[in-house]
Amino acid sequence: MILCDVGNTSYHFLDGDRDYKQSVKTFNPHAITERVYYICVNPHAKKILDTLANWIDLSRHMDMSFYYDTMGIDRIVACEAISDGVIVDAGSAITVDVVENGVFQGGFIYPGTKAMSQTYKTISSALDYQFNYDLDLSKLPKNSQDAISYGYLKILYSEVISHARDIYLTGGDANKLNAIFPHAKIDETLIFKGMRKIIDKI
Amino acid sequence: MILCDVGNTSYHFLDGDRDYKQSVKTFNPHAITERVYYICVNPHAKKILDTLANWIDLSRHMDMSFYYDTMGIDRIVACEAISDGVIVDAGSAITVDVVENGVFQGGFIYPGTKAMSQTYKTISSALDYQFNYDLDLSKLPKNSQDAISYGYLKILYSEVISHARDIYLTGGDANKLNAIFPHAKIDETLIFKGMRKIIDKI
Repeated sequence: MILCDVGNTSYHFLDGDRDYKQSVKTFNPHAITERVYYICVNPHAKKILDTLANWIDLSRHMDMSFYYDTMGIDRIVACEAISDGVIVDAGSAITVDVVENGVFQGGFIYPGTKAMSQTYKTISSALDYQFNYDLDLSKLPKNSQDAISYGYLKILYSEVISHARDIYLTGGDANKLNAIFPHAKIDETLIFKGMRKIIDKI
Repeated sequence: MILCDVGNTSYHFLDGDRDYKQSVKTFNPHAITERVYYICVNPHAKKILDTLANWIDLSRHMDMSFYYDTMGIDRIVACEAISDGVIVDAGSAITVDVVENGVFQGGFIYPGTKAMSQTYKTISSALDYQFNYDLDLSKLPKNSQDAISYGYLKILYSEVISHARDIYLTGGDANKLNAIFPHAKIDETLIFKGMRKIIDKI
């Protein structure tokens, strides 16, 4: 069984135990002739996948009533994977979703590391620094790199911690955020767990 | 006495009681022949102003020892204006600085409303929403506009509030942020108060 999570920048596959990514810019989904269960947040890719009979859109096979209409299917499926906790999915955006007793409580969207780094740089060349993930979050900064890192990371940290639940870190930048959430469970295949749960119910 | 705070996008003047702005793109500082006391964070404008004898750079007339080397002079001068509180200066960036007994405690830098709005839009067209400043900050969102607004505003709010001090709102977007900080003192001329204090000591 092949699973695929199609994002804004890549097709993320799980084929048996092997997970790998292909760029949305270069990958041709016609290349796969086996059955693929997928979810997709990328409108352009979605149009192509809709025409392929062997690509099964899992969003058509699940109960969406606990979620809201415009919520990304990747967030929904990650929520389906756990019964309690805060999911921090760090991709091109960072989505933070809270689940309690298997029910979605709400969530928010924050810019991903790359986008936010670009944002500071665009505001002023004086703000063109790499984020310091080893920043001491308990102290107000007194240098530019930390002032930006704190602005990006500390306030995300405080909000996530405030929910006092297990933290699940997933997405391409999960490892970066692990520095500020050292007790989080890193699970880069969380979304595939959610997909498997949905497939089991079909 | 004419005061001027030169930012990344505009020259902000205070001439007597009248404050007005000129775009950095079109304003020619040679046009003013009177003495102008100024501060400037804009490297391009700084080069021009350095050549004009009637433009007095206040950064050369103050004790910087409490601040850090690369800290924007606009943040420093705003800190000089108060003795206790959190200053939220909402311009192209939002700077948040804490002052206790007249001493700078540290601060951080967050993207301004325009830059952050652009950031979400750049990540995905599905995130192209206006921020909802009237968002209920006590509830996790269940719609896209609020998910983005919460990501931008709630976590800024929580951090600012956590310092448990008077909040001073200044900068071009002070009025927008007033919705989330209803008890803040709005003072669009805070920086000019800091400049006057420095001039008094020269």
